[in-house]
Amino acid sequence: MTDSDAQQAALLALRDKIDGIDAEIGRLISERAQCAQRVADVKTAAGATDAVFYRPEREAQVLRKAMERNSGPLSDEEMARLFREIMSACLALEQPVKVAYLGPEGTFTQQAALKHFGQSAVALPFSAIDEVFREVEAGAVNYGVVPVENSTEGVVSHTLDNFMNSNLKICGEVELRVHHNLVVSDVTNVDSITRIYSHGQSLAQCRKWLDSHYPNIERIAVSSNAEAARRLKGEWNAAAIAPLKAAELYDLRIIAEKIEDQPDNSTRFLIIGAQEVPSSGKDKTSLLVAMRNQPGALHSLLEPFHRNSIDLTRVESRPSRSGVWTYVFFVDFTGHKDDARVSETLAEVASQVADLKVLGSYPKAVL
Amino acid sequence: MTDSDAQQAALLALRDKIDGIDAEIGRLISERAQCAQRVADVKTAAGATDAVFYRPEREAQVLRKAMERNSGPLSDEEMARLFREIMSACLALEQPVKVAYLGPEGTFTQQAALKHFGQSAVALPFSAIDEVFREVEAGAVNYGVVPVENSTEGVVSHTLDNFMNSNLKICGEVELRVHHNLVVSDVTNVDSITRIYSHGQSLAQCRKWLDSHYPNIERIAVSSNAEAARRLKGEWNAAAIAPLKAAELYDLRIIAEKIEDQPDNSTRFLIIGAQEVPSSGKDKTSLLVAMRNQPGALHSLLEPFHRNSIDLTRVESRPSRSGVWTYVFFVDFTGHKDDARVSETLAEVASQVADLKVLGSYPKAVL
Repeated sequence: MTDSDAQQAALLALRDKIDGIDAEIGRLISERAQCAQRVADVKTAAGATDAVFYRPEREAQVLRKAMERNSGPLSDEEMARLFREIMSACLALEQPVKVAYLGPEGTFTQQAALKHFGQSAVALPFSAIDEVFREVEAGAVNYGVVPVENSTEGVVSHTLDNFMNSNLKICGEVELRVHHNLVVSDVTNVDSITRIYSHGQSLAQCRKWLDSHYPNIERIAVSSNAEAARRLKGEWNAAAIAPLKAAELYDLRIIAEKIEDQPDNSTRFLIIGAQEVPSSGKDKTSLLVAMRNQPGALHSLLEPFHRNSIDLTRVESRPSRSGVWTYVFFVDFTGHKDDARVSETLAEVASQVADLKVLGSYPKAVL
Repeated sequence: MTDSDAQQAALLALRDKIDGIDAEIGRLISERAQCAQRVADVKTAAGATDAVFYRPEREAQVLRKAMERNSGPLSDEEMARLFREIMSACLALEQPVKVAYLGPEGTFTQQAALKHFGQSAVALPFSAIDEVFREVEAGAVNYGVVPVENSTEGVVSHTLDNFMNSNLKICGEVELRVHHNLVVSDVTNVDSITRIYSHGQSLAQCRKWLDSHYPNIERIAVSSNAEAARRLKGEWNAAAIAPLKAAELYDLRIIAEKIEDQPDNSTRFLIIGAQEVPSSGKDKTSLLVAMRNQPGALHSLLEPFHRNSIDLTRVESRPSRSGVWTYVFFVDFTGHKDDARVSETLAEVASQVADLKVLGSYPKAVL
């Protein structure tokens, strides 16, 4: 047997094994889909015409378990992504989830909708955040996906402001991790960089980092990552700003990672719906609080959270639209509103402020 | 035990069962990923520095098997989609496939790239078909995805023309089925339709059908399917043109299906690469043929295919860029160039024409 024959034999054996595994996986996916159908039957048999088939807390639990059980070689993220798609396909059997997102197609919000609901959901773009809210409120769709924290501050405000006049709940959050990196090619002399190429938008998102690390370097906005990479390969004194996948695609070397100015909060999205979501075990809660403008008001709002060891993840003030209040705050913290400690804290806070509205308790982003 | 208790107990039992199935699926996916790693090890151990990890014919076979084995309740298409993602994740472990596609993001070509390579591939948009060819030729990416048949005839030509000056092979094809439907809402009086709303582009793609079925009806171009649906709900004398998912999303009733003027060939894409693809068992072959302009030339080109019962799926003539030839034809047929009957036919045809170039034999689109 030659080397090549041995190799062929080894490959054939492995492929046979993979075929056997695939047959098993296929059988189990079918069995899982049957179970999902029976879940739907039980819910429908209970006579509820508005039976809820999609349970955000249950989905989060299934994904977390899939990640906990995973011992490689796939990353936890890849494993969870596969389970997301399996759940999405099973769910669509009964009732495809209908989702409205802030369009157009090809935006990060579409990517967020796909990431959260999987490819079997029916998702359509809308041209404004208000429209997404309206579609969900009218019951035309089950859920909406809107950006809440990204580099365009205006978009964020618009989403938050919509909650002031809406009874919709936050049913989930999605995080997209798109990091910027400073990259060079194999011809670059790293000590002699005199220009940095990137999208205008990427340059803007890394402005502070560039100001402090490369203050006197020319920044040149180009049309695409591809274009930046191409220039890089021809100029020994140039670097570029690019996301990881572009660096991989063009075999570029990363010399500084995650250089965006707002590292944590640049790409977060909310799932909005009519549903209250039970605890998944690892949850977040978002509040809208209206307060009179008096000395120490913000401190007295936040103190009970601190005293009860509730971790605030975000506090954001917004101008109120009503003349009565002076401040409106959006507050995010870790925990579910039905947790004893949280509900006591909320009761205490509610007694001190003009108005308190729980926008929703929902599973922390799994991925 | 009350009804509700019984329901809860039934649901809990089903969820436990699903959790057990999920644990098994997770274990098998990990095992499959390990096998994929070993396949890569065997290939690398053979000393080939350019070992090919992605095998279009093998992927096609795996997907076809997954569909054949499937006995529901998921559709064959959903099952294949899940296996596509599992393969994509396993492959990315070793070497993520790098793909260049005709952008921008959010276009059908991106959707085609995703459909063919799964979400674990590294895919980046390029702004022109030539650029996609150039990236693949330069070895910067493994594959390119370009449209070959859609409603914009110019794009098609551009892809075909690129093959005249390129040594790249066709490694696969992707079909996207996006059908247009005539839809109405529950307030519509179907016998009194006086206007039809849709995207300008959709109206154009259904022009002939509309001319013959609704010749004197006003056609109104609106900005989105959402907008068309909204108008529909307020006007008893209106219909709209919408894809299936929009009809589902807005609870619209389809009164005529697949009304686009070019039903079969409107959305086909080619995967281009440097690789020759062995037979998958169900293949297609694309040829580029240059012929002198003489009487009966086309007939003598096509006759051998007919005589040998080879099914031609497409013949398209293009102006040659060289002065010597008068005609250039692109010919697609069913079969692989290594099939005895096909190779004999090709030899016969080659002896009669000025030039014959096999652009590639590749698996027929599985989904």
